Amino acid sequence: MAKTGLTEREIIGTFKRRFASGPKLPLGFDDDVAAFPMSQGRLVVLKTDMLVGSTDVPRGMTLGQAARKAVVATVSDFAAKGVQPRGLLVSLGIPPPVRLSSVKEIASGLKRGASEYGCRILGGDTSETDELVIDCIGFGFAESGGILRRDGARLGDVVAVTGEFGKTSAGLRILSGKKKPWPRRFSKLVYSVLHPAARLETGLKLARTGFVNSSIDSSDGLAWSLHEIARLSEVSIFLEEIPVAQEAKVFARENALVPEELALFGGEEYELVLTIKKDRFESLKRKIPSLLRIGTVKSGLGDVIMDYRGKNRKVEPRGYEHFT
Amino acid sequence: MAKTGLTEREIIGTFKRRFASGPKLPLGFDDDVAAFPMSQGRLVVLKTDMLVGSTDVPRGMTLGQAARKAVVATVSDFAAKGVQPRGLLVSLGIPPPVRLSSVKEIASGLKRGASEYGCRILGGDTSETDELVIDCIGFGFAESGGILRRDGARLGDVVAVTGEFGKTSAGLRILSGKKKPWPRRFSKLVYSVLHPAARLETGLKLARTGFVNSSIDSSDGLAWSLHEIARLSEVSIFLEEIPVAQEAKVFARENALVPEELALFGGEEYELVLTIKKDRFESLKRKIPSLLRIGTVKSGLGDVIMDYRGKNRKVEPRGYEHFT
Repeated sequence: MAKTGLTEREIIGTFKRRFASGPKLPLGFDDDVAAFPMSQGRLVVLKTDMLVGSTDVPRGMTLGQAARKAVVATVSDFAAKGVQPRGLLVSLGIPPPVRLSSVKEIASGLKRGASEYGCRILGGDTSETDELVIDCIGFGFAESGGILRRDGARLGDVVAVTGEFGKTSAGLRILSGKKKPWPRRFSKLVYSVLHPAARLETGLKLARTGFVNSSIDSSDGLAWSLHEIARLSEVSIFLEEIPVAQEAKVFARENALVPEELALFGGEEYELVLTIKKDRFESLKRKIPSLLRIGTVKSGLGDVIMDYRGKNRKVEPRGYEHFT
Repeated sequence: MAKTGLTEREIIGTFKRRFASGPKLPLGFDDDVAAFPMSQGRLVVLKTDMLVGSTDVPRGMTLGQAARKAVVATVSDFAAKGVQPRGLLVSLGIPPPVRLSSVKEIASGLKRGASEYGCRILGGDTSETDELVIDCIGFGFAESGGILRRDGARLGDVVAVTGEFGKTSAGLRILSGKKKPWPRRFSKLVYSVLHPAARLETGLKLARTGFVNSSIDSSDGLAWSLHEIARLSEVSIFLEEIPVAQEAKVFARENALVPEELALFGGEEYELVLTIKKDRFESLKRKIPSLLRIGTVKSGLGDVIMDYRGKNRKVEPRGYEHFT
């Protein structure tokens, strides 16, 4: 234990136990964002997400793309909660000597990301660090009860996602591999890594319907996200289908990988994972065609279960995690 | 230029130029905190401050003290604005392998700092980094016009500070020096570095009086803080007295240093630097005895001027700055 060090989850667990005292907050420490009562039933919603050069910036990603990705990662958590981020603060750690061209590239990437999602950069901090660190902090406002939560899944809910999975997982393998240039048929996979997108518009639209019982973003991987909903909602999730992107299937076939594993255990894929009132899914799907049904919420103790050759099999709570 | 790299100020300047467009905000990009309109004349106030192991954690400082210092640095900016911070988010970067004892120590330091200043830790993020990074984000609420600004100094204002200077500057020299153990008479100097305090109570009290025209915290050094007020308020500041702490004077004498230089060009000293309506200073001083008058606001173009042997001399805009 001591030798290998704590995992990210264990660190967060330690913090949670230490900080959990005090009056109950609108959202748990475990949710995608933090929320704090403002006045008259309104909440301020906050999120911080730290991008680190050595672990979050794959080979081939420019500084501008990395800066934009830092914004996308933060906005994605707002998307999952159905809350419009209004402004961003950015704490930048950058190794010296700092070139003007690098700073301009970072500033452009941040600005591009912010304007794509209708928010504004209001301030920040700058420090000297050994490696690139971009901590992107977002805030927004919401009505009490107007935030999609991780812990709201109910029995019978349809489990759905906003798109197919596996592209970033394959793309990261391509970027970290030795084959250059990569075949053109894999461009979409690489693009998904270098130019991720947060599902903000979809998340806001979904929140307005009132038919979504729980929601999380999939930045730590599909399997992990499903487990979080199941664990916090105290239910189980039965997967009927694993939504693998066509290009990821091709990549898996050519590289002797299991496509479903790419989709389940990848990460840095900014789709939304939701549970929806069962009698509302079809009408919602007509409004938001990108919604894909992948399973059902059943009673249980936090398991995620899939059918494998006619037998139920547990999907492990593995995901994209540092410190392993 | 290109060889030595940009300074912290140049980096912030580049960001400012890139992000300054859009509707005018309640506070400038240059102020201690960012502010954003909420509703009905109320503002949300936000600040991020990144503590970095290699530059902000001197030898002899424990992890718990470093974590508490990260909180103090953020709270100090709220103190200077006269705004109560309500909650904190913390983005932690920590080098692997991560020991449970380290995480507990960091959590305790954060919690101690938060409870000293009446705020609460609501959430955060954890990443693997090459060195310790603690990005502490604070938020609070204020009425429009209820925030003490950097750019409000008026002609005739009394320039004042909330305490004496030079202790941290001397303390940092002691901690980075080779003499161990340090003489007991210097314990206060070392303590000022390892256990800094934000002047939150004083800042809140000052803001309520309505007599403070401008305010900044002195974390980048006294000279730098005075220059910021002078530059942003488009005035000059004439120093009548440089408030050097007694222990810093002794340290300076024993080490052939100029005491006034320790006080002016130090840093990580979390006092407040203010300009106060001239006919209100005396009554304010009776309520807040720690207030020290150090100068006067005069017309000018952003200079800070002191009397040196009967002649006016400009105080350089030097301070505690990384990237130099």
